[in-house]
Amino acid sequence: MIIFGVDPGLAIVGYGIIEYSGNRYRAIDYGCIKTEAKTPFTERLKIIYDELSSIIDRYDPDDLAIEELFFNKNAKTALKVGQARGVEILSAVNKGVDVYEYTPLQIKQAVAGYGRADKKQVQEMVKLLLNLQKTPSPDDVADALAVAICHSSCLKFKDMFKMK
Amino acid sequence: MIIFGVDPGLAIVGYGIIEYSGNRYRAIDYGCIKTEAKTPFTERLKIIYDELSSIIDRYDPDDLAIEELFFNKNAKTALKVGQARGVEILSAVNKGVDVYEYTPLQIKQAVAGYGRADKKQVQEMVKLLLNLQKTPSPDDVADALAVAICHSSCLKFKDMFKMK
Repeated sequence: MIIFGVDPGLAIVGYGIIEYSGNRYRAIDYGCIKTEAKTPFTERLKIIYDELSSIIDRYDPDDLAIEELFFNKNAKTALKVGQARGVEILSAVNKGVDVYEYTPLQIKQAVAGYGRADKKQVQEMVKLLLNLQKTPSPDDVADALAVAICHSSCLKFKDMFKMK
Repeated sequence: MIIFGVDPGLAIVGYGIIEYSGNRYRAIDYGCIKTEAKTPFTERLKIIYDELSSIIDRYDPDDLAIEELFFNKNAKTALKVGQARGVEILSAVNKGVDVYEYTPLQIKQAVAGYGRADKKQVQEMVKLLLNLQKTPSPDDVADALAVAICHSSCLKFKDMFKMK
C-alpha cells in the first residue's frame, strides 16, 4: 500500500511517499514544497495545492497521513499555517484520498518507540527504517516520512485516526 | 462590476454577490453555506470549496473580498477556522479571481461610516444600501454583503487591500 505523509506548513511543506507491504517500508519519493514569504499568500496556497495534487496524481496513494498542528500561544501563526493546512487537506479530499491525522506524540511513539524522542532520534529512525543513505533534510521531510511510517504502524486501527 | 463578498467560517460561510456600477449597488445573490459539526472535517472543507467554486462559475465575479480573521486568544479555534478560510481563498484563486481582504474596522467604516458601528447598524446599512426588503440573516450573510460593499468603496485604491 502507498502512504502519503505530509508535514503541514506554509513556507515549507514536507512530503514523503512510502510503500508498505509485508511489514517492510520503501521510500518512493520525498522532498518539500517551498513557498517564499515575498510571494503573495494567495499564490502560495495555490502552489501548495497544485504541487500536492500533482504528487497525488503521480503516486496514487491509498491514504494521506498528516501531523496535527498545535499552537498554544500564537493565534496569528496558527491562522496562517492553518489556512495552508486546509488547502493541503483539500488536495487529498479532492482526489478521493482519505486523510488521517496523528499527534507529534503518536508519531514519535510509532517511529522511535517512545513519545519523548527528540528530532534527531526520529530522523535517525526514519533513515534506518527506510534504509536511506542519509538523513532526509530539512526536518520537514523527515517529519513527513515519519508520519507516513506512523500511519503504516496504525493500519489495523486506522479508523481511530481518520480525520473527522 | 461584480463583487463576491465572503464572511469566512467553517460552520457558516456567508456570501454575497453584488453588482456595482455608476455608484449604485445591486444585490445579485446572497446566502450562506452551512456545514454541520457532525460532518467529517475533510468533507466540510470540500463542501465549502465546491459550493464557492460553483457560485464563482455562476456569477463570474471580478474580485473576491473577504474579511480578515482575528483571534487574540484561542489558537485552537483560529486553526480550525483558518483551515476553512484557506479553502475559501483557494476557491477564488483556482478560478483566477483576485482576492482582497479587509479588517472588520475597515468594513464598518465603509458601510456604516464609522469603525465602531455595532452589528445591527451594519446590517441596517447593508439593507438600505442594497435596497433589500428585510435584513439578511444570519449575520454572516449581512457581513458578506458588507465586505462586498466595502470593496466597492475602495476600488480606486484596491491594490492596497490585495491579499499578499
